[in-house]
Amino acid sequence: MTTLSSPLPARREAPPALLSALRARFGDQFTASEAVRQAHGHDESPFDDAWPDAVVFAGSTQDVVDLVTLCAQYATPLIPFGAGSSIEGHVLAAQGGITVDLSRMNAVVAVHADDLMATVQAGVTRMQLNTHLKDTGLFFPIDPGADASIGGMAATRASGTNAVRYGTMRENVVALTVVTANGKVIRTASRARKSSAGYDLTRMFVGSEGTLGIITEVTVRLYPQPEAVSAAVCSFTQARGAVETVIRTIQLGVPVARAEFLDALTVQAINRHSKTTLKEQSMLFLEFHGTPASVREQAEAVQHIAHELGGQDFEWALQPEERSRLWQARHRAYFACLQLRPGARAFTTDACVPLSRLADCIEETMAETQASSLPCPLFGHVGDGNFHCVIVTDPSQPSDMAEAERLNQGIMQRAVRMGGTCTGEHGVGLHKRDMLVQEHGEDAVALMRQLKQAWDPLNILNPGKVIPA
Amino acid sequence: MTTLSSPLPARREAPPALLSALRARFGDQFTASEAVRQAHGHDESPFDDAWPDAVVFAGSTQDVVDLVTLCAQYATPLIPFGAGSSIEGHVLAAQGGITVDLSRMNAVVAVHADDLMATVQAGVTRMQLNTHLKDTGLFFPIDPGADASIGGMAATRASGTNAVRYGTMRENVVALTVVTANGKVIRTASRARKSSAGYDLTRMFVGSEGTLGIITEVTVRLYPQPEAVSAAVCSFTQARGAVETVIRTIQLGVPVARAEFLDALTVQAINRHSKTTLKEQSMLFLEFHGTPASVREQAEAVQHIAHELGGQDFEWALQPEERSRLWQARHRAYFACLQLRPGARAFTTDACVPLSRLADCIEETMAETQASSLPCPLFGHVGDGNFHCVIVTDPSQPSDMAEAERLNQGIMQRAVRMGGTCTGEHGVGLHKRDMLVQEHGEDAVALMRQLKQAWDPLNILNPGKVIPA
Repeated sequence: MTTLSSPLPARREAPPALLSALRARFGDQFTASEAVRQAHGHDESPFDDAWPDAVVFAGSTQDVVDLVTLCAQYATPLIPFGAGSSIEGHVLAAQGGITVDLSRMNAVVAVHADDLMATVQAGVTRMQLNTHLKDTGLFFPIDPGADASIGGMAATRASGTNAVRYGTMRENVVALTVVTANGKVIRTASRARKSSAGYDLTRMFVGSEGTLGIITEVTVRLYPQPEAVSAAVCSFTQARGAVETVIRTIQLGVPVARAEFLDALTVQAINRHSKTTLKEQSMLFLEFHGTPASVREQAEAVQHIAHELGGQDFEWALQPEERSRLWQARHRAYFACLQLRPGARAFTTDACVPLSRLADCIEETMAETQASSLPCPLFGHVGDGNFHCVIVTDPSQPSDMAEAERLNQGIMQRAVRMGGTCTGEHGVGLHKRDMLVQEHGEDAVALMRQLKQAWDPLNILNPGKVIPA
Repeated sequence: MTTLSSPLPARREAPPALLSALRARFGDQFTASEAVRQAHGHDESPFDDAWPDAVVFAGSTQDVVDLVTLCAQYATPLIPFGAGSSIEGHVLAAQGGITVDLSRMNAVVAVHADDLMATVQAGVTRMQLNTHLKDTGLFFPIDPGADASIGGMAATRASGTNAVRYGTMRENVVALTVVTANGKVIRTASRARKSSAGYDLTRMFVGSEGTLGIITEVTVRLYPQPEAVSAAVCSFTQARGAVETVIRTIQLGVPVARAEFLDALTVQAINRHSKTTLKEQSMLFLEFHGTPASVREQAEAVQHIAHELGGQDFEWALQPEERSRLWQARHRAYFACLQLRPGARAFTTDACVPLSRLADCIEETMAETQASSLPCPLFGHVGDGNFHCVIVTDPSQPSDMAEAERLNQGIMQRAVRMGGTCTGEHGVGLHKRDMLVQEHGEDAVALMRQLKQAWDPLNILNPGKVIPA
């Protein structure tokens, strides 16, 4: 089990009177069954399970209001749960309490095609929304890999492969419906594309990981499906050449839609797993969106840059099947890495640094991970300065977990030292609370703590997460 | 004089002991002279002047720390002042107190060209930064018209003509250095392009209008100067055709860099002022950034759309002189409108609505303003759904000011009713505090009030602004 970054306060179990009141109010939507509690006491993090005392399946914002009101009455923790794909322990009931599962709130409330916006309930997943949008000519671009719920993506300020072009949830959430700790329903903003009307409530809840309010609806920006898409891949003997190619591409103003890097170990894992014969060195995967003429022009511009920086075997394609073939390796990366050790789990890091330090950061990180006993393939969204090491561990081996945490600490420290952040897109959760102080300083974290106290004085909303003790 | 939206609390004058302490600490940087107080008790708003009791010219973040600490000791208001170009009364010393003038903090601290970022002191103006960047191939795009300070632009969440392509200060501030109400210096974020490390402190201060902390340094995003720029103009007999042209342009994914609308009265004002012979009907001004091939393609795509929607006399140009000629009318709009009545002042409105409601909103607004006794030319950043009426008033005539405020109220109510905001880019200041409740609801404003109380318990930071009493 991973060492927590700072100790958790004692458990605050739901009192029997609260459980009775919840059962009375919610009927079949309430359960204290072992199987359901277990399923909700578990996520994709390296932490041990931590079960809630009961689970309520919310069907509406009013359900959440009533639930918050009851939990407040008993000062009992309330943990929001979407798809359970969090990887930093956000949804674990570390102090006990009630989990509110929002997955049944999965209605697309409205598609405002002329405004390039959609409003969805928090439990709608990104794939569900895109399926719903299929005939509109619009799409929702944020793609964190997992088919996460859009409420959860807002709560963790998620992003993914095409943030370099379309931004993260920070830029793409227009407005939220939120239930506050005192059971009020607020709408954080209008649907105007911009506003200077007071404090930015939307951005206060985006990335707050369920600790400031419970998100029940999300209005997101949509984008026209590009008329044309082109894809490209390229190999480099050195990681630095790949990274510099992306930096120069961005500096030249080429509006690249995705810019993904895989290190040689990841490529090796893919070859082994998929019986492919890719050259086992650093690889860059690119995607361009625009008109047919523009995506051709973009691909050619990057080919030229890559060539100057030692890129080899540059290939690009316009047709969907060809593009899929080129990107296949990238899509298989995570799963192939896990297969490096049968039965292993991934312990995933999440550094993000300014572009000018990315090559240094990746090189130093690779030097350290290559000296480790654990396989640590590295890949990432290099257009944003963000990369992940998938540290392949056997979670039953305490020495593996200790080594993984040692590497993770080193990576976080290095990112912060280089002017970056300990988490580009995964969030703080249980795991990175102490790093928050190192990254922002005690005075900045004090402001966060004051905000949390002002808005959740009973500390019932996902307590123990984000803010260090 | 305009009626305030809600009454201000009583004045809180600086006690003599504070003035002595400030004089002792700041020497020549401190003044209580009438001329300087007057200059700082005045902005571009329709409000009467409201002078501070004294002014301190800060030269460093440490100066601001010492100033905040002394003002806190005497519970005396402290009002940040940049270029004084605010138009909603943000910098007026409505309750008395000390104004901190940040215009001498005008150093460009660092240009991180590889990261596409620059860090500046709060008093650096946008034009100063762009002059500084001239040889780097980069530029800072946010252009609110006035040569505002970048600290002030962050504080009001400013935007302007090219937000449709590059976003507003919300999207373009990477990190801030802020002095809090208890005299601590915090850095709101790292220089990583994205982060999920805790609450979004940066976005809490962007748009907080000096009420939550005093911004002393700003790190902003920069962009590569486009390889090519093209400009276009087009006339429409109906405002709706112009607006629909912009909506379809955006829906098609054409990455238009600017999309400005002028109504017929504005064009008439320009003709009268500049002795031009433009057709006196609605006009659209567009700008495209990209490669030479791409800006040609963009202009042609929009020409096609405009033609379908009744656009006439479409002209476009690639060469700088030709582009300037086409855009000349737009650049002269504000000044030409003021000349509709000699000696007049502008009372400027700032509605922003979802794109789908923009044509309705503009048509209804024009029907109302055309029935008014005051000239109300209308123009705006229609790609964002944002437009301004420049209500031409004689501020010495109470009836003019009452009529202007009546029109302004109607415009704000309509914007909110149509799912938009009472202020797209000018901020709340003294003027729009009551609209905040109408727009967000009392429960959302309560959260803002709790945040203000938590972070500024003595209410010394720009008191009376943003939050309604």
